[in-house]
Amino acid sequence: MPVQNAQFHINDLGLLRGYGLFDYCRTYYGRPFMRDLHLDRFHCSAMQMDLSLPMGKAELRAIMDELHQRANQPDLAFRLLLTGGYTDDGITPGTPNLAIMTENLPVVDETKFAKGIKIITAEHLREMPEVKSTNYMKVILLAKQMKAQGAADVLYHHQGELSELSRSNLFLFKKDTLITPHHNVLKGVTRRVVLELAADNFRIEQRPVYLTELAEADEVFTTGTTKKVMPIVQVDNQPVGRGRPGERTRFLLGLFDKLTQQAEVPSSAAMA
Amino acid sequence: MPVQNAQFHINDLGLLRGYGLFDYCRTYYGRPFMRDLHLDRFHCSAMQMDLSLPMGKAELRAIMDELHQRANQPDLAFRLLLTGGYTDDGITPGTPNLAIMTENLPVVDETKFAKGIKIITAEHLREMPEVKSTNYMKVILLAKQMKAQGAADVLYHHQGELSELSRSNLFLFKKDTLITPHHNVLKGVTRRVVLELAADNFRIEQRPVYLTELAEADEVFTTGTTKKVMPIVQVDNQPVGRGRPGERTRFLLGLFDKLTQQAEVPSSAAMA
Repeated sequence: MPVQNAQFHINDLGLLRGYGLFDYCRTYYGRPFMRDLHLDRFHCSAMQMDLSLPMGKAELRAIMDELHQRANQPDLAFRLLLTGGYTDDGITPGTPNLAIMTENLPVVDETKFAKGIKIITAEHLREMPEVKSTNYMKVILLAKQMKAQGAADVLYHHQGELSELSRSNLFLFKKDTLITPHHNVLKGVTRRVVLELAADNFRIEQRPVYLTELAEADEVFTTGTTKKVMPIVQVDNQPVGRGRPGERTRFLLGLFDKLTQQAEVPSSAAMA
Repeated sequence: MPVQNAQFHINDLGLLRGYGLFDYCRTYYGRPFMRDLHLDRFHCSAMQMDLSLPMGKAELRAIMDELHQRANQPDLAFRLLLTGGYTDDGITPGTPNLAIMTENLPVVDETKFAKGIKIITAEHLREMPEVKSTNYMKVILLAKQMKAQGAADVLYHHQGELSELSRSNLFLFKKDTLITPHHNVLKGVTRRVVLELAADNFRIEQRPVYLTELAEADEVFTTGTTKKVMPIVQVDNQPVGRGRPGERTRFLLGLFDKLTQQAEVPSSAAMA
């Protein structure tokens, strides 16, 4: 059905109490990309919020395929939303509500991959960061400030330790060492893919990363389903490295783009 | 319309991104209690989340009165919900969506006022605690633990400092001094009423309150729209004072009950 007709009653716990989680994946060249990893994470998020999915992975895949076919466009995004369901008393979860929707892919200015983006930083730690919950109050409140500063996103830190951007992961290069925070972050699917792609070419450190390390980094980039491998060239008022996308970042973006062109393969094979 | 027919589209920002706020008030003896204070706070919460209410206080009151009349029952609760509206891109607020609903009052076991309740503590700090946002992930996740421990609610603390319970405020008595945290809390309407009622009889301190002070308190209670003035007799495994509701708490509950019996008066007059 069209999204205009898809509705949840107003006593849904996602609406009343922000008790919901989601996942978001996309197609490349008409094929879902790393869909099984997204579905696995969707399942994990649900478990961590004590909610059970009303159907299994095969059924989810079948519905997504049918929606894809009906949408009659080669590439799109899928959003899967699960909430605490209709509540009787305003606080206790009922039977979870699930919605699966297709969306147009966001229009990404392709020159950004060549130019890189500017970001700001903010003190913040997501609640249960390893769960893809629907709580995005912080970044929505920061939207004005980001716009005023010409920033494309915000990087969160807490007591000096970096975690992640509002909807994507953080990577730093110090020479040929690729560094990424490994706790208090949502383990992104693109993050995982990039770590695998980088393994043959770089030394990798998954460890606590500190705000002070940004100034020492040669290259910084962020990974996400819509951002792919996006160079970051400025953090607040400080340029990163020489203030333009680095060659290692571009190399990883090239590998990533190549992977998206391949026919979909089981994620374990792609990852092997 | 019946709540079963009241629906928001699934691209509402309250559902997709937990970007929503609400207020909740009730009637006593068929009359709304402190409704203007609730409507003022609803307006303040909206402003702090950069959302504007689609109508003024007079119109909200008129709708609530009509719902009250149609509900055909003397006493009920009103829930007002405001979200970021339908979003085009999954993250940017649209025109806010407003829902006003009536609910049956929760069934409160009246013996609890005589016996007091047990609560647990948890390390947590609400995001923007002064805003009545819809983010209640923490307490919903703690529900099992509370049930297992026979606890009625949870008291949040952060780095040793107490803030509030999941949906109500905290008060301590040390002899005739009434103490309540004054920052990182939602300023409850019942909290305000109780502070006014207590002013003639007790010394009042609104200040940072520490976890360690619970053991020194003679009486502890919590205030909220459905809890009124509820004695707390046990925190985790520690009894409060002599482990039963204190006389000062009962005195304040008595004053509060008396106030609810009065005809509704403008809050400024009630508070004067």
